[in-house]
Amino acid sequence: MRHDHLITSKQLSRADIETVLDRAAEIDADPEAVADRHANALLGLLFFEPSTRTKMSFETAMKRLGGDVVDMGSVESSSVKKGETLADTVRVIEGYTDALVLRHPKQGAAAMASEFVDVPLLNAGDGAGHHPTQTLLDLYTIQENAGLDDLTIGIMGDLKYGRTVHSLAYALTNFDTRQHFISPESLQLPREVVYDLHQQGEDTQIREHDALEPVLSSLDVLYVTRIQRERFPDEEEYQKVAGEYQIDTETLEAASDELTVMHPLPRVDEIAPEIDDTDYAAYFEQAHNAVPVRMALLDLFLRDHGTGTGTRTGAATATADAANGDGGEADE
Amino acid sequence: MRHDHLITSKQLSRADIETVLDRAAEIDADPEAVADRHANALLGLLFFEPSTRTKMSFETAMKRLGGDVVDMGSVESSSVKKGETLADTVRVIEGYTDALVLRHPKQGAAAMASEFVDVPLLNAGDGAGHHPTQTLLDLYTIQENAGLDDLTIGIMGDLKYGRTVHSLAYALTNFDTRQHFISPESLQLPREVVYDLHQQGEDTQIREHDALEPVLSSLDVLYVTRIQRERFPDEEEYQKVAGEYQIDTETLEAASDELTVMHPLPRVDEIAPEIDDTDYAAYFEQAHNAVPVRMALLDLFLRDHGTGTGTRTGAATATADAANGDGGEADE
Amino acid sequence: MRHDHLITSKQLSRADIETVLDRAAEIDADPEAVADRHANALLGLLFFEPSTRTKMSFETAMKRLGGDVVDMGSVESSSVKKGETLADTVRVIEGYTDALVLRHPKQGAAAMASEFVDVPLLNAGDGAGHHPTQTLLDLYTIQENAGLDDLTIGIMGDLKYGRTVHSLAYALTNFDTRQHFISPESLQLPREVVYDLHQQGEDTQIREHDALEPVLSSLDVLYVTRIQRERFPDEEEYQKVAGEYQIDTETLEAASDELTVMHPLPRVDEIAPEIDDTDYAAYFEQAHNAVPVRMALLDLFLRDHGTGTGTRTGAATATADAANGDGGEADE
Repeated sequence: MRHDHLITSKQLSRADIETVLDRAAEIDADPEAVADRHANALLGLLFFEPSTRTKMSFETAMKRLGGDVVDMGSVESSSVKKGETLADTVRVIEGYTDALVLRHPKQGAAAMASEFVDVPLLNAGDGAGHHPTQTLLDLYTIQENAGLDDLTIGIMGDLKYGRTVHSLAYALTNFDTRQHFISPESLQLPREVVYDLHQQGEDTQIREHDALEPVLSSLDVLYVTRIQRERFPDEEEYQKVAGEYQIDTETLEAASDELTVMHPLPRVDEIAPEIDDTDYAAYFEQAHNAVPVRMALLDLFLRDHGTGTGTRTGAATATADAANGDGGEADE
Repeated sequence: MRHDHLITSKQLSRADIETVLDRAAEIDADPEAVADRHANALLGLLFFEPSTRTKMSFETAMKRLGGDVVDMGSVESSSVKKGETLADTVRVIEGYTDALVLRHPKQGAAAMASEFVDVPLLNAGDGAGHHPTQTLLDLYTIQENAGLDDLTIGIMGDLKYGRTVHSLAYALTNFDTRQHFISPESLQLPREVVYDLHQQGEDTQIREHDALEPVLSSLDVLYVTRIQRERFPDEEEYQKVAGEYQIDTETLEAASDELTVMHPLPRVDEIAPEIDDTDYAAYFEQAHNAVPVRMALLDLFLRDHGTGTGTRTGAATATADAANGDGGEADE
Repeated sequence: MRHDHLITSKQLSRADIETVLDRAAEIDADPEAVADRHANALLGLLFFEPSTRTKMSFETAMKRLGGDVVDMGSVESSSVKKGETLADTVRVIEGYTDALVLRHPKQGAAAMASEFVDVPLLNAGDGAGHHPTQTLLDLYTIQENAGLDDLTIGIMGDLKYGRTVHSLAYALTNFDTRQHFISPESLQLPREVVYDLHQQGEDTQIREHDALEPVLSSLDVLYVTRIQRERFPDEEEYQKVAGEYQIDTETLEAASDELTVMHPLPRVDEIAPEIDDTDYAAYFEQAHNAVPVRMALLDLFLRDHGTGTGTRTGAATATADAANGDGGEADE
């Protein structure tokens, strides 16, 4: 993999993805082999938005590689309150660390920030933009459970604001997949995302639905996302819509026995707890896969870096989406 | 010690307690011997309530064993805000770490959470419920200063809401102790606690008092707790009550020269600073004992775990108090 | 260097300063040589005020020495909220760690706290008081860029509230310097600071100005500080004053080609981004120098400490300024 930074799943070729997933599988099989690989390396954590899972699993991944982290802490306790620009913040902190992980509410923030730093910067979510490390752990989970080629996947819930979903859908166009998108009309995939998916993937079939039932039996994987209350003008409307996109054991009676149910978590009511102990459920495994996949990424991006230095690693420059929209889903 | 989790001091036999205290004493005598014992092990810190001492001393203990921690951070910066259940949160985070420490405002939370995880879970306080690691460091301090058998102890202050006090009193019933409880009537031990203490300890004598003076001279240990302002309907009532349960050098004129004064800290006005440099004062020592005692506990619970894995350690299941009450003292 | 604690730059002799800067230069030249020097040592971080840079760079420094940190976290999540005194807090936490770093809003806090602890305590800013580690990294940056003797320095911006400025000005009196202070009249150096500077430094020349232009061409170093909005009664007044003390490439046309521009960061509008890529700019280098300089300080203060113990290091007691004023700049 020859990238300076990881900004979007769009920058990843099929070969890049396979490199990451293979490395993650190696690490998963023998974590002790890398337990000291990046001893003395420091990862800077810059989370401008709340996060539990992404932050903790990056921290875990770095520590499982023998390294350590330095955490900027919350925005409230930082210089950001004093009006410092993101460019200045990352330029200061790159001087402390060997790589940076950035979560930021503004779309395009990671691409912009990466232009100011020489150490690898990994995008951990930029508003409605991208969340490529989530995509890679999703792909890893799909590969482990159903395989990535000749795959029929259903992606259900909030498809409008879900950066997790957009990133995953783009990445899957590298493989031979049939993608079914299931959502209420008000939360459909944005038209430009549909257009892009059609452009990218020759072998990709895209279908949109407003109900799960017609496609359920054909699915290898059902990827469920949270429908966020705050997207709806009133509670009543939310309850009506949310209720139609929840699954329980009854829902799954029509599914294949081989179906894998995934969810980026946290869930609220989308998946009934009774599913948790069935063979369908892969969402906790998916959450745990964050560690080997982020270990693989850190290992790949730190690979060419000497210990304790901040010299540039790769050759190519990240293809970065520098769009400027705000908002987006805090999907984790 | 054969427990999967540490939920309450009630689950600990006298032999269990002695195992922990002996290990703590060994560690205290030669901390270097264990400085790398749990290298590569990770402890997950889940504090759903503020804490300084408990959290910092667990973190210190893990690091003094060569391991490291991964901290969920405050509830405000976590997925809990998005409506995630405690069961989901612990199931995700156990996948990152080799053991968990949980502080939660709801009584019974630790017992409930422990049912969902395979790694050892240590209760660091569950509302008005239990705080067994505090109890063990209290016992260690008593043992070092006065011995645990043939002990006369006075426990003074807020005995109604103080989980520290209830946990300690239960644990002391494993030993030959005379326990004097000194408090204003409105903050007496709950009747069910008194009942339980009588049931448990054959060799335990329980007495309740509304003043320190009648028993002071007989005490080997005086354990003082904070009377919390927020327990009182008005400031005047608080000032009146709090003032009667404060100690200074004048108060202690009637005490034995061998008296050991303890306090779980933080203190406000319960113990005058003039006591700090006397031989009575053991409360800073008590605070520092948090490190060897929590090191001993982590060492015992991580003992049978391979590095970096999450396989189950012990045999027996924790006897857990799954009561559902809220509130309780944030005693640290 | 023979000090128990580092409280103020006033306590540092020229020899002390040279010891720190020499050690920092050694570390900068070969960071790997010290990568495990303080393995197993723990540094306690007590930040009672927000900070990004100071805290992160101390954490980085400790980890680059092979050690680790234990962080009290924000005041909101700590026992301080329960009314604990600073003296109690530091006495508890010194029992966990091998050294302490303290940032506190009250002037004199570090000096007071240091009287209660046996481990080395480093002042990371006490209100309008002192910030000696910032001063040392400023001196290091000056030495690397312009040399510390026969130096002409301009210090511009908020000179009234800036503890960074006062600490630096005092420290520079140990060297042969000409100091020009440039500020609006309302933000001039306090008269007692001017008096003290005259008293201390035989070889120091002090001049005050209300504009940069007359002195710019003579400067080896221009040290710019932030003018804080909150110091002004109304926005209009702030805008007027702030605008006069901003620099851009046009401003610098009259400067020497050898001029070094410094800033403690964060900046808001004081230095135009167009300066960033010129040879004048040393402020990001200055920020990065925080790591080797703080590594040098930690190394010197931990030097005589056994691993994992809390025994006292030096001989002399810190000359501490126990003044009691509040407020002051959170200049980081």
